[in-house]
Amino acid sequence: MRVMVTGGAGFIGSHLIDRLVSRGDEVTVVDNLSSGVFDFIRKHVDDGSIIFHNIDLKNLSDLKPLMHEIDMVYHLAANADIRLGTKITDTDLNEGTIVTYNVLEAMRLAGVSKIAFSSSSVVYGEGAPMPTPETHGPCIPISLYGASKQGGEGLIGSWVGTFGFQAWVFRFANIIGRRGTHGVIFDFIHKLKSDPNRLEVLGNGLQEKSYMEVGDCVDAILHVIESTNQPFNLYNLGSNDTCSVRRIAEIVIEETGCKGASIEYTGGDRGWAGDIPKARLSIDRLKQLGFSVKYESEDAVAYTTRALIKEIMGE
Amino acid sequence: MRVMVTGGAGFIGSHLIDRLVSRGDEVTVVDNLSSGVFDFIRKHVDDGSIIFHNIDLKNLSDLKPLMHEIDMVYHLAANADIRLGTKITDTDLNEGTIVTYNVLEAMRLAGVSKIAFSSSSVVYGEGAPMPTPETHGPCIPISLYGASKQGGEGLIGSWVGTFGFQAWVFRFANIIGRRGTHGVIFDFIHKLKSDPNRLEVLGNGLQEKSYMEVGDCVDAILHVIESTNQPFNLYNLGSNDTCSVRRIAEIVIEETGCKGASIEYTGGDRGWAGDIPKARLSIDRLKQLGFSVKYESEDAVAYTTRALIKEIMGE
Repeated sequence: MRVMVTGGAGFIGSHLIDRLVSRGDEVTVVDNLSSGVFDFIRKHVDDGSIIFHNIDLKNLSDLKPLMHEIDMVYHLAANADIRLGTKITDTDLNEGTIVTYNVLEAMRLAGVSKIAFSSSSVVYGEGAPMPTPETHGPCIPISLYGASKQGGEGLIGSWVGTFGFQAWVFRFANIIGRRGTHGVIFDFIHKLKSDPNRLEVLGNGLQEKSYMEVGDCVDAILHVIESTNQPFNLYNLGSNDTCSVRRIAEIVIEETGCKGASIEYTGGDRGWAGDIPKARLSIDRLKQLGFSVKYESEDAVAYTTRALIKEIMGE
Repeated sequence: MRVMVTGGAGFIGSHLIDRLVSRGDEVTVVDNLSSGVFDFIRKHVDDGSIIFHNIDLKNLSDLKPLMHEIDMVYHLAANADIRLGTKITDTDLNEGTIVTYNVLEAMRLAGVSKIAFSSSSVVYGEGAPMPTPETHGPCIPISLYGASKQGGEGLIGSWVGTFGFQAWVFRFANIIGRRGTHGVIFDFIHKLKSDPNRLEVLGNGLQEKSYMEVGDCVDAILHVIESTNQPFNLYNLGSNDTCSVRRIAEIVIEETGCKGASIEYTGGDRGWAGDIPKARLSIDRLKQLGFSVKYESEDAVAYTTRALIKEIMGE
């Protein structure tokens, strides 16, 4: 199969590419390296198993010629910094919604009609019942990142309904693991690296979310696509439980060996405006396809912490 | 109250302005007259009761200076031609999603935080239970217009959650009435005007949707805003029943006096790719606020047909 992965040099994209290459797909990677890291995919480029294009998806004309001879697109490219939306309001619009439009339009023009998309649990907004099923409504995202993911879902739905596309849309819990480039564990390790005696935690630490290890995430993506064949296939991806920010702080302090570090909470029920304090997805749909995760939330956090300590402290 | 109405020279906008002016609001109208009609608001401009700006909302810099001294924005501007998305794919993105971003951003920069937004029943997509409640999920629009409305809803939600805005979002059924500039009744009258012996109907005529008279619609908007005060207020607006396209064709033929006209169906279950054949909204939330519509669907169709015949045949 000839596939394109947008954002393929990113955290999740690079893990997906490992899987696609190992199963023999022909992979074209598109990434502007704004948050992606070329080293994550270097070995595949060097041994000729993938083709890499450093282009910006905001330019439709750059994307169009690359779409020929492609059977399916995994569209993962996005701004990954959710908090940024509180300060700069057009990043998620441009790099999320509009880029998704460009991907869909380039596909339509080239006759490519299968797309997988990384949406997010944050489309559910605040106050959804937990665990939240895919059928929850109304979805009112409270972050600009969430709005861009919902905007992308809607665009994809409309390309399915209007132009006969087939889509797999995944609403991700917090995905963590090796090569993580952002998120709470990444932040905590960096903070302790610069000051081993003190760990500042945004909010009161009672935020509690579901974490999924990135290997489980990409396995789930491929499992769902192989197991389903509706025009529009929507699946939550996550684990079966949650882990609190307070517990994550304890784990990171323990694993870094910064035993004397004091935890200092900035207070309030959330990390920033637009953060959702508590989130847990129902993954019943995923499980009904015969998939089970290897890591539940706390194990995924512990595993990720050890992996990122090596990557960050080894710098 | 000092309000701005975007798309104020349009069909629904101009009716809303009639109400706002009559209750004494200071009204600023923004419209690029792409589908809006200056004559709809001319009398208010001439007598000085509203201020009109012919600007394009796609240019944020044109909008910014107009947002000062505004208390609330009624954001109705949008591409009104749903079918256009099947041919030109960026109109709804540019004139829907991106314009909504511009409106929100101009408001944020000027410190304006109250917005009412005309969303649509088409955000529910196909296959929703009927009557469809606001809590239905997932919402997977199948038209590009629907995607732009969902994108707008998400942006508004995120401005509420991130920047403390207050919003009223209305998911409209098919709104019809005097000054209609598009839609099935408008199309049928124009077709019979050019050929009184033959009426072509897109689809098999069994499409069946809920219709709301525009006076009921703007009364409902103002009633909901006066009666609610949550940060994000979401309401379906429609009537209690439906009317089939076949029945509309009969009514238009009868009212135009084209009794001999043959009805010719193009076939298929829908008018065009992305059309939703059957739609009926639950308006229980609206009714719980003590509002009731004056016209049910068929009465609204008959009333509108007579009004539009005068407007179109009188040209």
